[in-house]
Amino acid sequence: MSGLLMPKADDSTMSRRSDIVTALRAIVPGEGVVDATNAMRVFESDALTAYRQLPLVVVLPQTVAQVSRVLKYCHENNVKVVPRGSGTSLSGGALPLEDAVLLVMSRFNQILEIDYPNRVAVVQPGVTNLGITNAVEHEGFYYAPDPSSQIACSIGGNVAENSGGVHCLKYGLTANNVLGLEMVLITGEVVRLGGKHLDSEGYDLLGLMTGSEGLLGVVTEVTVRILQKPATARALMVGFPTSEQAGKCVADIIAGGIIPGGMEMMDRPAIHAAEDFVHAGYPLDVEALLIIELDGPVVEVDHLISMVEAIAYKNGASTCVISQSEEERMAFWAGRKAAFPAVGRISPDYLCMDGTIPRKELPKVLAGMRELSEKYGLRVANVFHAGDGNLHPLILYDANIPEELHKAEDFGADILRLCVKVGGVLTGEHGVGVEKRELMPEMFNEIDLNQQIRVKCAFDDKHLLNPGKVFPQLHRCAELGRMHVHRGQVPFPEIPRF
Amino acid sequence: MSGLLMPKADDSTMSRRSDIVTALRAIVPGEGVVDATNAMRVFESDALTAYRQLPLVVVLPQTVAQVSRVLKYCHENNVKVVPRGSGTSLSGGALPLEDAVLLVMSRFNQILEIDYPNRVAVVQPGVTNLGITNAVEHEGFYYAPDPSSQIACSIGGNVAENSGGVHCLKYGLTANNVLGLEMVLITGEVVRLGGKHLDSEGYDLLGLMTGSEGLLGVVTEVTVRILQKPATARALMVGFPTSEQAGKCVADIIAGGIIPGGMEMMDRPAIHAAEDFVHAGYPLDVEALLIIELDGPVVEVDHLISMVEAIAYKNGASTCVISQSEEERMAFWAGRKAAFPAVGRISPDYLCMDGTIPRKELPKVLAGMRELSEKYGLRVANVFHAGDGNLHPLILYDANIPEELHKAEDFGADILRLCVKVGGVLTGEHGVGVEKRELMPEMFNEIDLNQQIRVKCAFDDKHLLNPGKVFPQLHRCAELGRMHVHRGQVPFPEIPRF
Repeated sequence: MSGLLMPKADDSTMSRRSDIVTALRAIVPGEGVVDATNAMRVFESDALTAYRQLPLVVVLPQTVAQVSRVLKYCHENNVKVVPRGSGTSLSGGALPLEDAVLLVMSRFNQILEIDYPNRVAVVQPGVTNLGITNAVEHEGFYYAPDPSSQIACSIGGNVAENSGGVHCLKYGLTANNVLGLEMVLITGEVVRLGGKHLDSEGYDLLGLMTGSEGLLGVVTEVTVRILQKPATARALMVGFPTSEQAGKCVADIIAGGIIPGGMEMMDRPAIHAAEDFVHAGYPLDVEALLIIELDGPVVEVDHLISMVEAIAYKNGASTCVISQSEEERMAFWAGRKAAFPAVGRISPDYLCMDGTIPRKELPKVLAGMRELSEKYGLRVANVFHAGDGNLHPLILYDANIPEELHKAEDFGADILRLCVKVGGVLTGEHGVGVEKRELMPEMFNEIDLNQQIRVKCAFDDKHLLNPGKVFPQLHRCAELGRMHVHRGQVPFPEIPRF
Repeated sequence: MSGLLMPKADDSTMSRRSDIVTALRAIVPGEGVVDATNAMRVFESDALTAYRQLPLVVVLPQTVAQVSRVLKYCHENNVKVVPRGSGTSLSGGALPLEDAVLLVMSRFNQILEIDYPNRVAVVQPGVTNLGITNAVEHEGFYYAPDPSSQIACSIGGNVAENSGGVHCLKYGLTANNVLGLEMVLITGEVVRLGGKHLDSEGYDLLGLMTGSEGLLGVVTEVTVRILQKPATARALMVGFPTSEQAGKCVADIIAGGIIPGGMEMMDRPAIHAAEDFVHAGYPLDVEALLIIELDGPVVEVDHLISMVEAIAYKNGASTCVISQSEEERMAFWAGRKAAFPAVGRISPDYLCMDGTIPRKELPKVLAGMRELSEKYGLRVANVFHAGDGNLHPLILYDANIPEELHKAEDFGADILRLCVKVGGVLTGEHGVGVEKRELMPEMFNEIDLNQQIRVKCAFDDKHLLNPGKVFPQLHRCAELGRMHVHRGQVPFPEIPRF
């Protein structure tokens, strides 16, 4: 493992490994407990592949009762637990710890109920994001949030990270599309939050769980909103001589009261990489490309398309193509959706960042990124959800060149600091995980962090769930009043023993 | 005070009253501390006027530093605090306690910033809901959530109750329209949550605060999303011979992929009361009336209006009028918006209930309510947000007839139990307050309630903030593991001394 300080493993847990494995086998029979090194290798990282670590043991439960008993056992025996869905996290949220049970939820893969009159689906957390849409599309419905990893990522992971996607500008993040959860607390107790209705009393624990990165509990059932497919969708592909013009176009569209189904921007390096890879028909003589999708009733879409076209030309668009068929619309998106692997073809390695900024700061942040690119001597390709200000700069580096990963990480941290400086935040949809853990004090002061950790303690007072993630330091809950988070330092996150 | 058990006042606090008043005067000078009985009388209830109680003392701070110092003083000296905005709560959330400081936020009435490019407004919590729209409408913007009390209710109160309104089907509740908060913890520490951006890392404390009913902290600044006014809005007024047909029409509109800006239903007693009061032109020969508003670009609205009209007639509408002018649209709404005072004209008193159900259960719940009405011998008028299943049954009673309030409360509790039974919840937008406190165990089991109280403890471990509201019993945080909430009982909520 390079470039990341992880908590020192707890010797007492390591020495009890065979007892722990035996106890888990008594709860989850058969193939459900994996402790052979080779078999565990497949779980040693998530999609933040720069960091790898074998877990203490892997457990794949199949029932809520098993999840409850595993967590109860771990709680009573002070064993740490890292929950994991499909392992597509880009921030290392599902990175195993050598002294923690890796609780893999992939066998929870059933769709339990589809209720069209109430427009909800009740699914197990291991169902993939796209699996929900696949199950309801024959009735004309779909599940709106669509992260790029939607073929593989699980809905439980989407809840943990509050995942977005190209359509979240209009249809919201995961938090806006989840109506109910069943979750198991570290004590083994099962809690139900929300349901099929829109409103709920009591504290908004549903919202709190969404985006909690596996630190508060383990989700065992998710009730999601399903939406009727819009009557039609059409896309515009608009090229601009400068990214400032593209940014102004985005602002004018929103200011015009138009909320596109998706509004994505790519810069020159991303455009070229994508075009070389999938031949989407992107113009190669522009600095910025917007893909703007309008969906809804046909008459509305036709009307909005012409409004957007006019706004684009007013802002100096050098090319503007409107999709005339479903095939053409899909082609426009193909390049955008393949942008990450496309960049992977032009660079041995890349770091995918995930900052969010107030929309109007786009030109300033793009200019700042160009300066940083020169400073670090590393290229950056930009692909982002322009409509909601969620940036995904891809920093290109070569892991075989000594110190390049380290340099890329520093570059990435500087980009995120820039995002915070203009009033934005460290992450949009990828989570904090281990990747942005050290940057939390850039965003939150000591009082803010203390309050978040107090909430963590209200769920998991022994800090057994996913320790070493999200928070730069852990603290005994009882000592919270005396806790200090040192701004600007990068403290070693040693986890206290209880 | 009748029909409500409130916590026994803490004698030690009562005996220190003059010391407390002196200490508060040192923090908030001038008119900011009110302790004369007559002057405090105006604060003795909120809009749940059946319950009245004088506070220990009233404080009206003007700065964040004053709020911080008041709370710090109360925390250090174990004095309870009830926060209050405009006092329009319908569930008794702002009901004073005789041994608690009433912290009134009405002097926080400034709009601090309007940022059109980012489409946000930063306001103090005492600004009224309508005050935000008034400040931005000259630029073509508005603030979407629109509770009926919007002329008077404060945005801080909206955050505390997660208020909705007739437009929340399409535009969301307060939680969906608040992007950032500044709040003061009971310790006096100031925390900032969220900001001007859409996404945020860290736990969703913003969501947790929204709907927390004054039990977690005191909001001192709110950043809200402002929306561009739609190009046009038109409404249909549709009458049906039965409420089942109206319910089916609502379901078919949603199933058709149409999300109206508002979709409201009234039953016969509500229609007649409203028509007698404001002469909106409502048909008097129908059992149910729908007011359905479509907003957006003109071409879209025209298209959707004709779709909705067809769905209405298919479901047996006996009358369907489409607004031909802004005046006519406003007239359709005038009756709906005046429904509560209109009902007040036909009955000496009424209780306004607030349950939410899955949309498709509407006919079942309406039938159940008719049975209950006969059982209790009390009339009920129904006004509700049909699109999102949020019911507002108004139970008519006469407080001068002995036991009628008590009977009305039992009737209301039965309605809410019916909502929970069909998969719904106890409240949509009015909060739990004192009104539905005893019903929380109908909805939540012991594990659920314990977890909510653990979260409460993470913010306010001495239970000083708004005690006696929301939770049927309070418990020492340290004893939470041994806590019991007795299902079905109505325990006396004595607040433990610390």
